[in-house]
Amino acid sequence: MPVFAELISIGDEILYGQTLDTNSHWISARLDEIGVKVRRKITIGDTREEILSALAESTERADIILITGGLGPTKDDLTKPLLAEYFGVGFTRHQEVIEHLKTLFSKRGRVLTELNEQQADLPANCTMLMNKLGTAPGMWFEENDTIYVSMPGVPYEMKGLMNDHVLPRLTEKYQEVIYHKIVRTIGIPESVLAQKIEDWENNLPKHLKLAYLPSFGQVKLRLTAIGGVKSELEKEVQQQIDQLLPLIESSVFGYDEDEIEKVIGDMLLAKNQTIAFAESCTGGLISHLITSVPGSSQYFKGSVISYSNEVKIDELGVNPEVLEAKGAVSEEVVMQMAKGVRERLKTDVGVSVSGIAGPDGGTEEKPVGTVWIGYSDKQKTVAKQFNFLKDRNLNIKFSAYSALNMFRIQYQAE
Amino acid sequence: MPVFAELISIGDEILYGQTLDTNSHWISARLDEIGVKVRRKITIGDTREEILSALAESTERADIILITGGLGPTKDDLTKPLLAEYFGVGFTRHQEVIEHLKTLFSKRGRVLTELNEQQADLPANCTMLMNKLGTAPGMWFEENDTIYVSMPGVPYEMKGLMNDHVLPRLTEKYQEVIYHKIVRTIGIPESVLAQKIEDWENNLPKHLKLAYLPSFGQVKLRLTAIGGVKSELEKEVQQQIDQLLPLIESSVFGYDEDEIEKVIGDMLLAKNQTIAFAESCTGGLISHLITSVPGSSQYFKGSVISYSNEVKIDELGVNPEVLEAKGAVSEEVVMQMAKGVRERLKTDVGVSVSGIAGPDGGTEEKPVGTVWIGYSDKQKTVAKQFNFLKDRNLNIKFSAYSALNMFRIQYQAE
Repeated sequence: MPVFAELISIGDEILYGQTLDTNSHWISARLDEIGVKVRRKITIGDTREEILSALAESTERADIILITGGLGPTKDDLTKPLLAEYFGVGFTRHQEVIEHLKTLFSKRGRVLTELNEQQADLPANCTMLMNKLGTAPGMWFEENDTIYVSMPGVPYEMKGLMNDHVLPRLTEKYQEVIYHKIVRTIGIPESVLAQKIEDWENNLPKHLKLAYLPSFGQVKLRLTAIGGVKSELEKEVQQQIDQLLPLIESSVFGYDEDEIEKVIGDMLLAKNQTIAFAESCTGGLISHLITSVPGSSQYFKGSVISYSNEVKIDELGVNPEVLEAKGAVSEEVVMQMAKGVRERLKTDVGVSVSGIAGPDGGTEEKPVGTVWIGYSDKQKTVAKQFNFLKDRNLNIKFSAYSALNMFRIQYQAE
Repeated sequence: MPVFAELISIGDEILYGQTLDTNSHWISARLDEIGVKVRRKITIGDTREEILSALAESTERADIILITGGLGPTKDDLTKPLLAEYFGVGFTRHQEVIEHLKTLFSKRGRVLTELNEQQADLPANCTMLMNKLGTAPGMWFEENDTIYVSMPGVPYEMKGLMNDHVLPRLTEKYQEVIYHKIVRTIGIPESVLAQKIEDWENNLPKHLKLAYLPSFGQVKLRLTAIGGVKSELEKEVQQQIDQLLPLIESSVFGYDEDEIEKVIGDMLLAKNQTIAFAESCTGGLISHLITSVPGSSQYFKGSVISYSNEVKIDELGVNPEVLEAKGAVSEEVVMQMAKGVRERLKTDVGVSVSGIAGPDGGTEEKPVGTVWIGYSDKQKTVAKQFNFLKDRNLNIKFSAYSALNMFRIQYQAE
């Protein structure tokens, strides 16, 4: 019998299109991982009748109801009093929350007001879930075999409460043992991947489920095992992955939470080497991805964004005659760019991109989406052509991730 | 009497957290602009009972029900047959859709199958809305004073149908004249902005509504006028804006759909001048924003991402003694970076950023979030300090937009 959940997001700002609701997306993915099926998501405004009717309706359909939003200290925020009303209970003041608020406020040099102290008053039938990152505690209710959880709408506070309290409690409550392992691939289209692993996938035992999760040239393969003893599930999943890897090994760059930009950094750190990029059509996106990783200054020295031919010649040492003869989007030029940035910035590796992102600039011979990527280290300088044929922003994103993958393959190949 | 809408998103991939639903966010904002209030958003899976019950429930509460998803040609896609079942009607084949499908398929070098042709069969009581960008037509139903619209879940197809058919029809149906004007500001916190325009805001006539829409150091002020003759509303809104501008003039960079990165490009184009960036903590994000604008190669020559001190010295000509004495995050260094990149890349303007994005690298004197931004042209070189004190990714974003604003102010000031 599957366990069903419903998610209720409360907030006028979501309803009127001012705030994009990413909370329910994140919660859905986490519940899916522990085997809880989300049956419905509902977004409503900060109004009494909508909140009460949504609660009553979800109670009829779901085992678990997770509510986000409407927990601030102002009178717009109705969730807490309405939960008390819905369950027909009064309020209890939680001293532990008062202490937490005092610490939080003194750090910010502020004094608690009565309005703030009221955040420690919770419906008498709830279990308080400490919100380390904010002022509004989470609330856990169990009534008539239904679990209700109320959390703030601020994404990092909600995530803290989910990770610290809600997910462990739900996992314990439903006792089902679930084990996931994600295999992360890059540079292989989902359809090609599916063909390569078709036989393996068809032979998976019934209690192992496979999901394909694609994004910008990457595909995550999530293997989920349900039921039994955890250590045995882990072993079984690992055995399957051992069989999977030989089929797609060159496309696999990591597992679980690994990000390609972090994996690349770790590859460089392991050899104590440095990298620089020469970006034309990607316009800085590759460097932005690389520097989104804390600590990237240990291996990333810098980049040259050579949008104009003049900068390609002056700053990267591209030969003007080759540029004229072959064009900026060519094998020869990206190889000179990769070598040039490596030498100029005195790094171990240089990676370059030049392409036609569009919407203008395409020709019959080189249509929009034509991209060359170059790689250079002390042993070799190579280049590869790609054809994305998409719109400007997608071409830029696909080019950036393909350049990261080009590094991964060439640097490994040494 | 307000007109109420409900949005129903259909798709297992949204429910299980694999796809982030951005459709309902976009639709909400568009409906808000034409004065239609969204009362509830519902996400359900591709299951018969969920779809039928959501339709029945929304019918009780709303005047307009907009449904996205579940319109593909495979048997997973239930929306169309269930709408026919819900209204108790059969199907009519639309020859116009068959012709459209034939054209679409011949362009892709494919032949129509019977499964594809069935996309032209629509419930007998609907008005077909031609989907120029895809294979599944939109459907418009009016039953018992309720409007039902079904659209594909692919975002650009949905947006095409909304813009071409649904929004014009809804506007006509409800006849209310609505006029919007957005004033776009940057570099002024929402709370400061609200204080500056408090008196003006309080004196707005009742039929003019003001909304604050903030994001990363920008605030959009949206003025909405409802009811009457459109030309008069336009005139009235313009009169209000004429009174507003003197209060906040230096923070206003554009109107309606203007983006700051596009506005900056237009400023440079107008003088036929060029720009380059020297990015340290922003790591390429500024250049990425600039090059996201088609045609940016006319004024953007390139950038140097000088993440290491060595690159600051070698590629930008920063004085090593100054760097040693003052530190990389200092007034002197960003001024040398801005001037250096302008001279090296032979542009009219150079803008530079150096800061401590975090999580590491902060000191008592220069905590995480300390950022210096420099500006240099042929007449002057200046710098300004910012303190964002946020997390790494927010510090990077706020720094990038502040650098764009620094250019706007200094380039105007000439």
